[in-house]
Amino acid sequence: MRCEFIAIGTELLLGQIVNSNAAWIGEQLALAGIDCHYHITIGDNRQRMHDTIRGALGRADAVIVSGGLGPTQDDITREVIADVMGVALVRDEEIAGRIRHRFESRGRFMSENNLRQADIPVGASAIPQMPGTAPGLICPVGDKVIYAVPGVPFEMRMMLSESVLADLQRRAGMTAVIRSRVLRTWGQTESGLDEMLTERMAHLDQAGHATIAFQASGIEGLKVRITVKERTGDEAARVLAAEEEAVRAIIGRYVFGTDDETMESVVLDLLRERGLTLAVAESVTGGMVAARLTSVPGASDVLRGGVVSYASEVKFDLLGVPEGPVVTPDAARAMAEGVRRQLGADVGISTTGVAGPTEQEGQQVGTVHLGLALGGRIEFQTTHLPGDRTRVREYGVISLLNFLRLRLLGQDPRTPFAGRR
Amino acid sequence: MRCEFIAIGTELLLGQIVNSNAAWIGEQLALAGIDCHYHITIGDNRQRMHDTIRGALGRADAVIVSGGLGPTQDDITREVIADVMGVALVRDEEIAGRIRHRFESRGRFMSENNLRQADIPVGASAIPQMPGTAPGLICPVGDKVIYAVPGVPFEMRMMLSESVLADLQRRAGMTAVIRSRVLRTWGQTESGLDEMLTERMAHLDQAGHATIAFQASGIEGLKVRITVKERTGDEAARVLAAEEEAVRAIIGRYVFGTDDETMESVVLDLLRERGLTLAVAESVTGGMVAARLTSVPGASDVLRGGVVSYASEVKFDLLGVPEGPVVTPDAARAMAEGVRRQLGADVGISTTGVAGPTEQEGQQVGTVHLGLALGGRIEFQTTHLPGDRTRVREYGVISLLNFLRLRLLGQDPRTPFAGRR
Repeated sequence: MRCEFIAIGTELLLGQIVNSNAAWIGEQLALAGIDCHYHITIGDNRQRMHDTIRGALGRADAVIVSGGLGPTQDDITREVIADVMGVALVRDEEIAGRIRHRFESRGRFMSENNLRQADIPVGASAIPQMPGTAPGLICPVGDKVIYAVPGVPFEMRMMLSESVLADLQRRAGMTAVIRSRVLRTWGQTESGLDEMLTERMAHLDQAGHATIAFQASGIEGLKVRITVKERTGDEAARVLAAEEEAVRAIIGRYVFGTDDETMESVVLDLLRERGLTLAVAESVTGGMVAARLTSVPGASDVLRGGVVSYASEVKFDLLGVPEGPVVTPDAARAMAEGVRRQLGADVGISTTGVAGPTEQEGQQVGTVHLGLALGGRIEFQTTHLPGDRTRVREYGVISLLNFLRLRLLGQDPRTPFAGRR
Repeated sequence: MRCEFIAIGTELLLGQIVNSNAAWIGEQLALAGIDCHYHITIGDNRQRMHDTIRGALGRADAVIVSGGLGPTQDDITREVIADVMGVALVRDEEIAGRIRHRFESRGRFMSENNLRQADIPVGASAIPQMPGTAPGLICPVGDKVIYAVPGVPFEMRMMLSESVLADLQRRAGMTAVIRSRVLRTWGQTESGLDEMLTERMAHLDQAGHATIAFQASGIEGLKVRITVKERTGDEAARVLAAEEEAVRAIIGRYVFGTDDETMESVVLDLLRERGLTLAVAESVTGGMVAARLTSVPGASDVLRGGVVSYASEVKFDLLGVPEGPVVTPDAARAMAEGVRRQLGADVGISTTGVAGPTEQEGQQVGTVHLGLALGGRIEFQTTHLPGDRTRVREYGVISLLNFLRLRLLGQDPRTPFAGRR
């Protein structure tokens, strides 16, 4: 099964927005075991859309088209696909009713052109999920298929996850029910996880009912996707749960969340469940830990706040760090306890280190000391992180949050990352 | 003149990295007045690379190919382009010498395959800028052209800016010397700037020696690019300087920097020149202002640090904000002065507001109060920012830094954004 992805949108060509949909779809297809050899971006132009969709259908079995499904005259994806299929567009009254209802229920006026979104090529079917006003489409063309989804990332992702991927896998001959789970990990390399799971993966290859795939995703962690296929949904759910348990038994200490959970949402949830509040003291990460935590709506019931102690005197005066070198494990410990006390929180965490471009206090770029004050215990962890200034800071953020997560769970927070020099 | 962009890299197809090069190149081409109708991403596969480059050359006058120029066996862009050109690859001894020297001067061992990067298709020329070990290539194919640049963003950008765009414009019949300058603005909408510059642009259309283009770039501000073409470099530099002066006379109060300057680097430079230190108090932006300032190497000689006062008690206890509502202009003022005093800085700035998803203290999502304490004066600005939680926070960051910038320059910090409801 080969698939291609076509993004429609002049604003993408002009660089007004970055085509992050391409990366997300590429990742999902790879994890689902479907080859994708081309990502193509074109503007809202009838001829080029027609030529590009035709060309993609000539090479591949399936084409995912995003964008151009809105209500305006610019939005011509429906028309072009109908043209490629050689069929007419017919208004789907049920969908038209849903669009009307959506406007009425919010007391908003609906202009007639919104109903263009209910026009469906003859022979195509609408994708059930419809978070916005534009339905997605599944459009068979001979033994091939075109999927049309909105360009809005949230809407696109919902339709892909809940309809398109399963349809693709079904067409790929995976007639069974397919279920997958992403385990998000931190603290171990891809090759390390691969090595740990070698036996399990060999066993799965023989048994043939589940697969495991890896995906390095930067600050979002390293994803491990387990995919199972069974005859029924119940059976798939049962096998997936069993396989997740087996995989967790091997790499569980590195798993911080599942599916769409982020490290920051997981840490906030753990603190909330325990009724603990948090304060953050940052030097090398300069506010990034706090910024990431506050990006989660509702962080305010856990996070009291933070201190960015960039100058050494702020560490000494405000956080009570003893005067002397500040890129040290002891400074990290003092910062964590200082910010906890100063902000009246239950837990304090901290970073001090060297992001580069040059070394500092004789310590090389990438050295980051993490501090944690919790329940009368004040500890540290020293990590040696790879990459440039941005990468060191980002890895410092997720490493610190993972240190706290493991401690909250009562697990050993030492990781191979921490020991790597 | 029509151009297409082809990104080579299996890691792009798999979603391991986001194709930000496409957006950047798209923006540069648009600002340079060159049409680009296709962005295509493919993996490191000889046949697909060949077909795709051929296809692009069939539609367009020029093709920019990024990636696949490295030293490993996977890197086959040079071979494929030579094949498309119907010529052989010949080693360029001067470039080979530069690559050898690069390794020797750093005391590193060079494996022989690095010299593959010195292989150039017959008839092609190397792009002079060579920040890495891979030279870019300008490869004529009949009356068309292929440009090959590395996928590393920094290297790609340098070659595009300093060689490829000028070559494209020259081929587009702009035989004169072309120079451009980007004025980065904040505080006015694209249509607002367009309206203010209407007369100037009409005048330029008649005179015909300069153009002005706009590019909304999110948190990076709204870019205004002035491009001039003249017979000589001296003349171009003179006309560009004169035109920049004329444009600045009209929209100068919105211009915060030129070319690659960012708002945070500009603000840090202004403070450094004046010998002033800075402290930041953040509520709604939750650490993002500090994180952005500390992303600039060398920020430590200006930035003392910051306080993320997320909980109201942290505002009251640590920053001395009077008890009561905290999403108010007075709270913003008190936060700015409190953090300035608490961290021993010359200048204090602050944010308090509502990023959403729900309103707070009866104030609607997007309301952000900015505080500034400088030289005994403690003032505020209230902004009403559009967009979702992320957007409101990002716009809050750049709006606050712009408020400080204007005050440091002794200019009126009130902007249309600030007054918009």
